[in-house]
Amino acid sequence: MSEMPVYALSDWGTTRFRLWLVDGSGNVLGEKRADDGLDVSRVKGFASVLEGHLASLGAPSNLPVAICGMAGSRQGWVEANYVQVPADLNAILVGAVKLPHMARDVRIIPGLCQSGDGPNVMRGEETQLLGAILDRKLSNGIIAMPGTHSKWVTLEEGRAKSFGTYMTGELYALVSQQSILRHSIQDAADLASPDHPEFVAALKSMLAGGSLLGQLFGIRAAMLLNDLKPEGAASRLSGLLIGAEIAGEKSLLNNRLVLVASGAMAALYGKAFDIAGLDFDLVDADEAVRKGLFVAASSIWPAAKGTSI
Amino acid sequence: MSEMPVYALSDWGTTRFRLWLVDGSGNVLGEKRADDGLDVSRVKGFASVLEGHLASLGAPSNLPVAICGMAGSRQGWVEANYVQVPADLNAILVGAVKLPHMARDVRIIPGLCQSGDGPNVMRGEETQLLGAILDRKLSNGIIAMPGTHSKWVTLEEGRAKSFGTYMTGELYALVSQQSILRHSIQDAADLASPDHPEFVAALKSMLAGGSLLGQLFGIRAAMLLNDLKPEGAASRLSGLLIGAEIAGEKSLLNNRLVLVASGAMAALYGKAFDIAGLDFDLVDADEAVRKGLFVAASSIWPAAKGTSI
Repeated sequence: MSEMPVYALSDWGTTRFRLWLVDGSGNVLGEKRADDGLDVSRVKGFASVLEGHLASLGAPSNLPVAICGMAGSRQGWVEANYVQVPADLNAILVGAVKLPHMARDVRIIPGLCQSGDGPNVMRGEETQLLGAILDRKLSNGIIAMPGTHSKWVTLEEGRAKSFGTYMTGELYALVSQQSILRHSIQDAADLASPDHPEFVAALKSMLAGGSLLGQLFGIRAAMLLNDLKPEGAASRLSGLLIGAEIAGEKSLLNNRLVLVASGAMAALYGKAFDIAGLDFDLVDADEAVRKGLFVAASSIWPAAKGTSI
Repeated sequence: MSEMPVYALSDWGTTRFRLWLVDGSGNVLGEKRADDGLDVSRVKGFASVLEGHLASLGAPSNLPVAICGMAGSRQGWVEANYVQVPADLNAILVGAVKLPHMARDVRIIPGLCQSGDGPNVMRGEETQLLGAILDRKLSNGIIAMPGTHSKWVTLEEGRAKSFGTYMTGELYALVSQQSILRHSIQDAADLASPDHPEFVAALKSMLAGGSLLGQLFGIRAAMLLNDLKPEGAASRLSGLLIGAEIAGEKSLLNNRLVLVASGAMAALYGKAFDIAGLDFDLVDADEAVRKGLFVAASSIWPAAKGTSI
């Protein structure tokens, strides 16, 4: 590296591990992506996974590391407690937990929780949310963060008021690969397309109040009776699930809507919002989580930022 | 056996194989249940699975066999085509396919299919439906047959007019055993109880228009935050899925409702219908499919029935 990094930032989820080295302005000097998520890291050891990836990027031994995501869960490295909503997101900055017995300074950012009748938790998305809010100077609206467990946050006067979770991505994976629909989708699970007529038709049927549970099997029947092809089957399943997700949100029409997503997700959800007649702003998910992590690191170690060359 | 059987009857599904030897009045003289469903039988060979179980019951070598279920699917023993709805169920009796190259007379009963905008298929439930209709002398109403793929049939003037499929049982198995909720449900998947407050609350929330996709993750959150126990988690998941299934049926209030189910299923769905304020008649699922198979066998081989001792 021509320049010295001042922070390492990591989004450490259930299945994915991402690491960035950044300078004092948040510019990326090095990046690593790996499948060393929670389950793998529990076996390999969290410290050795992290140090291994830091070493591969040539990170200095005293570089501080800010982490968000499932590494802070009860099954993770060390439990970083939840901040309860309604909450100012600055609360997650001061709640970061310092890892004991480490040569370098490593902190894990807490998640958010919601108690009462609609219990809910998030880990990782709170940091992405922080980045998106700062990036767009948001203070009110609905922020949709699709993924394995899609999070929908209602923001009110700069505070996270409440949130919901949809198991959209996880159900997509389970149903496409392990249910009877695997015979219909075969190896096309990654080929769901927002432009496929099956995606559009399935999405519309869910927005019109259709039953998700009652429409899934139609994918198999359409293969048997109408020769529905794997790409169409995958697109239909995606449309049913994303449509059911959007239909589950009741107060979308009178709120500013922000979609935090990247790549294929951004395309699928963007098209879905278009079909639903919903205006939205798009924030790149990767940039949002990095920005949130950088803001957290800058808040935890302001001196380090000041020493940036 | 003190009496000679005149037919063997088999309900041969994806995961289960059931075989009965009956006399000319349909009385059961011998019974066999095994895990030799479609997937296992494809490997072992259908003929040898069937002959093995027949031999274990001491069946005569010329005893004719009537089969319903997935053994008649494209991936099964031999494909028995579908009868298209709207249909008189007598059509499935005359459409039975005779297995070639067998010393004994073996026939597989066709399934039902629905074409057009709501493509659908069933195999096995048409025979159960036939038995239930004859048992209760039904000519109009809604017949609910819960299971891995729950079937809901609208009967009009004695004909199966249309039907829907809900992947309730399959999703219950996948979500309870393979999703993130497996940590919450652990080994209690079989302990879902219709009397658990979580079952009742979850069911009511679905009947009130809740989002299935948006409520699943709450089971994990309730475990993390409120110490929800495995049996409660299983009951909640069951209530969400069964509630979503019932909520998906739109014309229940003005129709006679018949539930075809046995054991735990009968208890869960019965309680669900009670909570939903729906009157229903209960028909035992095992008896219904056996009765349907017996009627089919009597229609295919009337002479055999006549020779009953």
